[in-house]
Amino acid sequence: VKVEIVTIGDELLLGFTVDTNAAHIARELGEIGVSIPWRSSVGDNAQAVAEAVRNGLDRTGAVITTGGLGPTSDDLTKPAIAELFGREMYHEESVADAIRARWAGLRRSGKIPESNFTQALIPRGAEIFANDHGTAPGLWLEDERGRWVAMLPGVPREMREMLANALLPRLIARTGAGEEGAVIRSRTIRATGIPESTLFNRLGPLATNVEGLAPAYLPGIEGVDVRLTSQGRTALEADSILDRAATAIRNALGSYAYGEDNDDLAAKVLDLCRSRRFKLSVAESCTGGLLGARLTAIPGSSDVFIGGVIAYDNAVKRSVLGVPQPLIEQYGAVSGEVASAMARGIVDTLGGDLGVAVTGVAGPGGGTREKPVGLVWIAAHGAVNECRELRLFGDRAEVRQRAAQAALDMVRRGLG
Amino acid sequence: VKVEIVTIGDELLLGFTVDTNAAHIARELGEIGVSIPWRSSVGDNAQAVAEAVRNGLDRTGAVITTGGLGPTSDDLTKPAIAELFGREMYHEESVADAIRARWAGLRRSGKIPESNFTQALIPRGAEIFANDHGTAPGLWLEDERGRWVAMLPGVPREMREMLANALLPRLIARTGAGEEGAVIRSRTIRATGIPESTLFNRLGPLATNVEGLAPAYLPGIEGVDVRLTSQGRTALEADSILDRAATAIRNALGSYAYGEDNDDLAAKVLDLCRSRRFKLSVAESCTGGLLGARLTAIPGSSDVFIGGVIAYDNAVKRSVLGVPQPLIEQYGAVSGEVASAMARGIVDTLGGDLGVAVTGVAGPGGGTREKPVGLVWIAAHGAVNECRELRLFGDRAEVRQRAAQAALDMVRRGLG
Repeated sequence: VKVEIVTIGDELLLGFTVDTNAAHIARELGEIGVSIPWRSSVGDNAQAVAEAVRNGLDRTGAVITTGGLGPTSDDLTKPAIAELFGREMYHEESVADAIRARWAGLRRSGKIPESNFTQALIPRGAEIFANDHGTAPGLWLEDERGRWVAMLPGVPREMREMLANALLPRLIARTGAGEEGAVIRSRTIRATGIPESTLFNRLGPLATNVEGLAPAYLPGIEGVDVRLTSQGRTALEADSILDRAATAIRNALGSYAYGEDNDDLAAKVLDLCRSRRFKLSVAESCTGGLLGARLTAIPGSSDVFIGGVIAYDNAVKRSVLGVPQPLIEQYGAVSGEVASAMARGIVDTLGGDLGVAVTGVAGPGGGTREKPVGLVWIAAHGAVNECRELRLFGDRAEVRQRAAQAALDMVRRGLG
Repeated sequence: VKVEIVTIGDELLLGFTVDTNAAHIARELGEIGVSIPWRSSVGDNAQAVAEAVRNGLDRTGAVITTGGLGPTSDDLTKPAIAELFGREMYHEESVADAIRARWAGLRRSGKIPESNFTQALIPRGAEIFANDHGTAPGLWLEDERGRWVAMLPGVPREMREMLANALLPRLIARTGAGEEGAVIRSRTIRATGIPESTLFNRLGPLATNVEGLAPAYLPGIEGVDVRLTSQGRTALEADSILDRAATAIRNALGSYAYGEDNDDLAAKVLDLCRSRRFKLSVAESCTGGLLGARLTAIPGSSDVFIGGVIAYDNAVKRSVLGVPQPLIEQYGAVSGEVASAMARGIVDTLGGDLGVAVTGVAGPGGGTREKPVGLVWIAAHGAVNECRELRLFGDRAEVRQRAAQAALDMVRRGLG
């Protein structure tokens, strides 16, 4: 089963909005075995909308559009597609009622702008998808030959809800997809602390073929993701082959692999601490709170994470963490000695079982020949005792994110 | 001048990669007055590539492609387009030399995989764009009627360099664009602390027409951006009308407007402190380091930002910040009393002129009827003295980000 996507809106074509809707729809459809052979984006232009939808119907007979359903005069999707299908537009009172109810619910003052009621104009014969998060309803329009267009809103939250609640169930019923049909399914193995080329070499023959699947390599700031995708198999077959392939990749990567799919390294670290009843704290210089933010982004982190000190100024390293001034003078704030003293200092100050410290030169300024931008020291004290020098690349934001990730990984490896 | 974009790759259509290249190219072309009326994405499929490019040439005579230039057998862009133009492929020795040089430069061991040399096969008559960050060269192919295709790599860094260094200068020369020609230019006014509907009402007639421009409203976690776009004017005219329109919007928004374009509220706060020689510190509970991370993300923050304490556990609020235990017992950790004591405590502990504190219920757990998820207290002590209750919506990440933004805004308004 194939469907085309047409995303509509001047902001998309001007490049001010990145088309995340198209990617979201593709992933969701893939889960039920529907593939997207073609995608178009056009502006708020009735002729272009009609042409893009017509091309899609000619190629695949099935098109999903996003955008152009709102109350302003820019929103041309409905009339353009109604004309393509030779349907007139009529005023649908149930939609007008929903608009009035929503307006009342938002407790807005004054009269509803008349323009809002253009949203109640719909093509004859269209079915309506309710919009729980906005006023523009979605529409399903089908011709006598079974060719169809599903029109979804452009606002991501509204589109996602409508896709999940109305369109996907309809497509599953229509295509017989789901448990029994063929699906597109993927699995990602997440690795960190290893460059992409080294990882590739380490995989050997698996690098290009594992259980007949061709891995895709996605290097990012937190590490390298290896993604496996199965197409044309049932969900059961796909899960089974992905399990075997993922195990093979994980075995080859050894301790560099820390998780799968959306696994977060901070959550892994919290789990490892939780299972040992360890309490964790942080002392941050160049990351400035990023490491704490990574850990506290995870719901339930409060049973493991005590807190920390952002020791940006050296005075804070001394006064709160108790780093001896002579140590800072002799080795500099960016040194293994100071990183270790910070890690010890945070455990002494806050208690707990394990302290992690980061100090480095994030750039763009502040680098010297001996201590260039990207030089970072990380240290752990307590349940893990270690100190490491890192030479990180990238801009300020990247150096900081890589440093936080490496500090988390030091704890994972130490406890793993 | 109009150009179409065709982005190529299975990962795009599967939704695993979001198409940021298309948005980047659109913005860059907009700057020289070239508009994109249509954009297509197709998979690694020679027939679809040829059809998408042919459609684009029929509509506008000018197409930019990204992707499908690499060494693997998936990469079909060149042969598909060569066939469309009726050109044969030949081995270009200068490209092969560049591949060998790059391989040597990377100090890779072993022989170059033969597949790499498919990148040296190019269509007869094509011009080559050098690739400074990879081995796949870009190509420019033009027919006798002046219709052209520019083929760029899909790797964002390689694409961006080649666009900036090779393609944009060529398009400027070709279209006479640049200083004298018509450009697409935009200006964003950033507002925070005001809901989109209230902002809209506050703008009155300017909401839909300011100096003949129609503002776009982009609500986000940090606030609402109001974007103005000028098309069809010279750079000089566009800047002048955008200046006037932005001034009108800013005047209407008053203190809700904190900056323009990519301005960051944290940078504004640092600037305000810097000009008064104030030193700033933070005490964070529910934001867990996010506020410190926002401030230290800005280069040069170290002359203003001293550091902070992540007081996640109440024991840290007591021991390091000196928040009295009876206060926590009587009012709860999420209260104005505790927020104020945290702000006072961080100034007492670290010194400096101004302390900012955040405590709240980020969710998803931990909410009660009296203190639901989204309840956050922020406080400032020292150069600004204030304490505010916030009722924030969204998931855990959103509540935390909104809380950090509101805390920064409290300082901005207090010092502004």
